[in-house]
Amino acid sequence: MHKSNNFNIVSSKINRIFANMELSKNKIKYFSSFAKKKTREEEQMFIVEGNKLVNELLQSDFQAESVVATREWIAENTPKCAVFEASSDDIAKISQLQHPQDVWALAHTKTQAFQSLPNGLTLALDGIQDPGNMGTIIRLADWFGVSQIICSNECVEIYNPKVVQATMGAIFRVNVHYVDLPAFLKKQQTEIFAADMFGENIYTAPLPQNAILVMGNEGNGISDAVSAIVNRTIHIPSFNTTGKTSESLNVAVATAILCSEFKRRML
Amino acid sequence: MHKSNNFNIVSSKINRIFANMELSKNKIKYFSSFAKKKTREEEQMFIVEGNKLVNELLQSDFQAESVVATREWIAENTPKCAVFEASSDDIAKISQLQHPQDVWALAHTKTQAFQSLPNGLTLALDGIQDPGNMGTIIRLADWFGVSQIICSNECVEIYNPKVVQATMGAIFRVNVHYVDLPAFLKKQQTEIFAADMFGENIYTAPLPQNAILVMGNEGNGISDAVSAIVNRTIHIPSFNTTGKTSESLNVAVATAILCSEFKRRML
Repeated sequence: MHKSNNFNIVSSKINRIFANMELSKNKIKYFSSFAKKKTREEEQMFIVEGNKLVNELLQSDFQAESVVATREWIAENTPKCAVFEASSDDIAKISQLQHPQDVWALAHTKTQAFQSLPNGLTLALDGIQDPGNMGTIIRLADWFGVSQIICSNECVEIYNPKVVQATMGAIFRVNVHYVDLPAFLKKQQTEIFAADMFGENIYTAPLPQNAILVMGNEGNGISDAVSAIVNRTIHIPSFNTTGKTSESLNVAVATAILCSEFKRRML
Repeated sequence: MHKSNNFNIVSSKINRIFANMELSKNKIKYFSSFAKKKTREEEQMFIVEGNKLVNELLQSDFQAESVVATREWIAENTPKCAVFEASSDDIAKISQLQHPQDVWALAHTKTQAFQSLPNGLTLALDGIQDPGNMGTIIRLADWFGVSQIICSNECVEIYNPKVVQATMGAIFRVNVHYVDLPAFLKKQQTEIFAADMFGENIYTAPLPQNAILVMGNEGNGISDAVSAIVNRTIHIPSFNTTGKTSESLNVAVATAILCSEFKRRML
């Protein structure tokens, strides 16, 4: 077993004994290593930072492994995991944020059981690459009651610290599954929509009560393999009448507008 | 007059003579200094990067001052400004991008004359701080035919490289004005809406043909001074029925959904 993993298992068991220990250089190195995807995958843990997100973590059904926090934070919170007291300077050393906060945590990733396709709207993401976009989409799915997101294997990993941050906690509530997207979609009975600039006008297109909406990669849109399976394409028309406008909307923004239209009309 | 400014005026005049010159250390230092707001304000110029954005710049009514590009880019483009040939490594030194591209430019900022409030929808931003949000909002304003954005003086500067990048070129088409927002709003006859979690349901609220929509700061929402002037508040209801959901949507996403509803119903 991995050395540092051993260390963590021990630290979980004896829990708050560590509360007054300083972070050793070794621990700083170990915690920092979770900035890397390879470490996250090997150790099956990920970074959660800041008051709001760590509080959401501790209230969720995700399991916290370690919390690193200032004395002030520790005085006001009682997480059920190993707790390390640290100075703001030491937290900054393991932080992935531009403005580190007074609490940083490691949590176990979760392999969520696939739930059968729910009624209403399901989102499918075909190669979303930007962590900010992925996090924003998870956050808006939570808002719009989209309880499950199906991601192609080419999508950015949801445990990337920038994704986690951009979800603002929604990562603890929305199920996200990585699948072979074309193979998955082929098996579904639900009508499949894809956002495409040549599609039907979303504001006037008839929409069903149940639908899968596929959003494509930031630069390349929907992949050929997925395009071949899609039943209908839709787009958000530009209201710009100058003849000169942006070629497209940001994918998270487009997802928001399409979810808004689908859900509004599913009422 | 500022030394480096002299240099640039000269370089503009003799134009493409520089095309085969390498970037000196001094020039790299000078160009890099535009990462700082102070330099941008003093020199009234800003950074534009990448093929797509530089092409949009050269087709816009903004004035390019200098272009730094690879030999390949220069062979295929003829900008009307000073052109410096540079290696990819040297472009990386002045680049603000994670993945530097083969062209980088300096452009003059523009003080846009305030146009009287147009019919339809006008956006007002009350302390938007995040450059990505600001850029995304400018891009979606362009898409939704919102030709003018009124910013409070507390908003992030639009010439911040991250804002410019996130606009995907919309910065060259949408007028953005910085004003004392409460004072400005007080003078308007148009109905003023603000996004607020306790506001009317956007999907069912009656909406006028002309409106100003105020979006507030990422953390604090609408300022007290602006709140006092707003006529109506609106919100996007959550469709999440689990009882646990995100507290809010990202401000750029919320702006997109509200613009979509306003414009759809202004048709």
